[in-house]
Amino acid sequence: MTDQPNFQGFVCPMPLRDYPTIVLGHGSGGRLSADLIQHLFVPLFDNPALSGLNDQAVLDINGTRLAFTTDSFVVNPLFFPGGDIGSLAVHGTVNDLAVSGAQPLFISAGFILEEGLPMNDLGRITTSLANAAKAAGVQVVTGDTKVVNKGNGDGIFINTAGIGLVPPDLHIAADQARPGDVIIVSGTIGDHGMAIMSVREGLSFETELVSDSAPLHTLIADMLGVTREIHCLRDATRGGVAAVLNELAERSNVGFMLDEAALPIRPAVMAACEMLGMDPLYVANEGKIVAIVPEAHADAVLAAMRQNPYGVDATIIGRAVADHPGMVLAQTGIGGRRVVDMPLGEILPRIC
Amino acid sequence: MTDQPNFQGFVCPMPLRDYPTIVLGHGSGGRLSADLIQHLFVPLFDNPALSGLNDQAVLDINGTRLAFTTDSFVVNPLFFPGGDIGSLAVHGTVNDLAVSGAQPLFISAGFILEEGLPMNDLGRITTSLANAAKAAGVQVVTGDTKVVNKGNGDGIFINTAGIGLVPPDLHIAADQARPGDVIIVSGTIGDHGMAIMSVREGLSFETELVSDSAPLHTLIADMLGVTREIHCLRDATRGGVAAVLNELAERSNVGFMLDEAALPIRPAVMAACEMLGMDPLYVANEGKIVAIVPEAHADAVLAAMRQNPYGVDATIIGRAVADHPGMVLAQTGIGGRRVVDMPLGEILPRIC
Repeated sequence: MTDQPNFQGFVCPMPLRDYPTIVLGHGSGGRLSADLIQHLFVPLFDNPALSGLNDQAVLDINGTRLAFTTDSFVVNPLFFPGGDIGSLAVHGTVNDLAVSGAQPLFISAGFILEEGLPMNDLGRITTSLANAAKAAGVQVVTGDTKVVNKGNGDGIFINTAGIGLVPPDLHIAADQARPGDVIIVSGTIGDHGMAIMSVREGLSFETELVSDSAPLHTLIADMLGVTREIHCLRDATRGGVAAVLNELAERSNVGFMLDEAALPIRPAVMAACEMLGMDPLYVANEGKIVAIVPEAHADAVLAAMRQNPYGVDATIIGRAVADHPGMVLAQTGIGGRRVVDMPLGEILPRIC
Repeated sequence: MTDQPNFQGFVCPMPLRDYPTIVLGHGSGGRLSADLIQHLFVPLFDNPALSGLNDQAVLDINGTRLAFTTDSFVVNPLFFPGGDIGSLAVHGTVNDLAVSGAQPLFISAGFILEEGLPMNDLGRITTSLANAAKAAGVQVVTGDTKVVNKGNGDGIFINTAGIGLVPPDLHIAADQARPGDVIIVSGTIGDHGMAIMSVREGLSFETELVSDSAPLHTLIADMLGVTREIHCLRDATRGGVAAVLNELAERSNVGFMLDEAALPIRPAVMAACEMLGMDPLYVANEGKIVAIVPEAHADAVLAAMRQNPYGVDATIIGRAVADHPGMVLAQTGIGGRRVVDMPLGEILPRIC
């Protein structure tokens, strides 16, 4: 294979930031993840569908446009307020399909079980996965189960891959944002990450912290019912809204200006973030999308979103600008501006 | 959800053989795996594509017939004679698509990395995965990377899911075997399992033990060039030829009679099996198929297979019979008969 780099004697080059081994940050959805993708995977697996760097590949098979995506779930703990690894594995893949505008149809489920996992836990998790699939209208049509020795896994890891049907006239993609576009978020941010942290850290607040894990394809269908002209759509998982906006800013070569005061954040989430020294913009969501929409359609899209149970708190949080392309800035409450940078590494390990 | 069993208070029933926790055997491809599938997954995920219990689902999307499959790879060691976890992850999924008669088109790659994995190993493995995909003519179009803490994984686990295009007139399935059909195996058996064991156990023979890991879609295309009337096709991975034949016997309600003397086995594999007390019929292959073919087409199919580099040692090893439906028997070298039962649990843990 003379036409590609020789990784047989692979030595981590500077673009991989000189890490000789994998660190947790390589799974963060931040800059270290992007390094792996851009400097290792994309050159090796060179093809147009992958190079689009969207959450899913859009494929043409015999004239049918299909979305195809995969996600592995390693969340810790396996059960958390608002969900578990089973429902999360469905919602994550359904949402990665839906943000291309696809109707999610079929998913696969690959289980890696650790020897010693209580059968009761496996029963609860697979039941939750099955119920979430039914509720989202997708069929689990194929699967695989592997078992690893005790100490070589962590209870259960689940991979789901999904197939969806993309309408022929849609071209939602990471490079479609234009100056003047409006940034909409579909509801409160940071709920999932703080629900996970509340279990791990033993936090307790008057208002319980609950994951927002949910399937968002009906919300997105409602938005597309208003206009096909939605420029970008992403679910704001690892790395939160900040990581999504930084990626879109870079891919579309626009700037984003956020209005910090407009960010919808539950008081309990805000309190937990303050206690842990975290910025809600960087905290993972599992039931929230970020949409970049032409200003002319923003009000109508917003109105449609608020009619959907998963979009009642939808709101405009900023806009795309021609200034500072590739950068995300936020107008702070006290009148200043701050840079909302791409996170480097891991903020909350194993959040999904 | 009143229309389904309540697994919230899930207690492992007798059909799950009273194991309160997951044991290695649940990942074996044998009877314990079948228990999980038949008593937990199939009832929960109830749908016709899954219930077919083939290695892949065959889906109709807008009139296009697609094969869809998934496999997680947890092989230990990561590198072995004849391959590594990267090439194996491609071959396994390509072959699961191909045995439906599909042309493999696209695969996904989901990586679960353990903190501390040398970047050099990741580079070698992903390069091997990319090269195997190119050689098999499939594109890696979507992916995902997660990192787990040191001690909660084992270097790298890879999930691949795949999509292939199934010709409209093919109906190869596990329940299609008929009495009188001939059993063909595409080459020597037990090579992959014994190559893995040779590394684990430090075996050394004059002839090296090398995995047969290979993509078999061109071999299968050559067979289908002779006749569309191939009844069953399986790649004989976990549980070996014995597990495949037991599954086909049960699903098709036929018996199988093997001619033990006809089994193609390399001397080094035979020697290793004897040393370890293993039966080559139960040892995993990663580059061999079992085909159940009407007698009228057997010679032509065999001739076509032997023209393909992956089928030069193809041979007839027995036939389907009306007697003892659901059971596999073997005519032994000394004139007797023995039962070739479904393996219960794990013969060779983490073989793929």
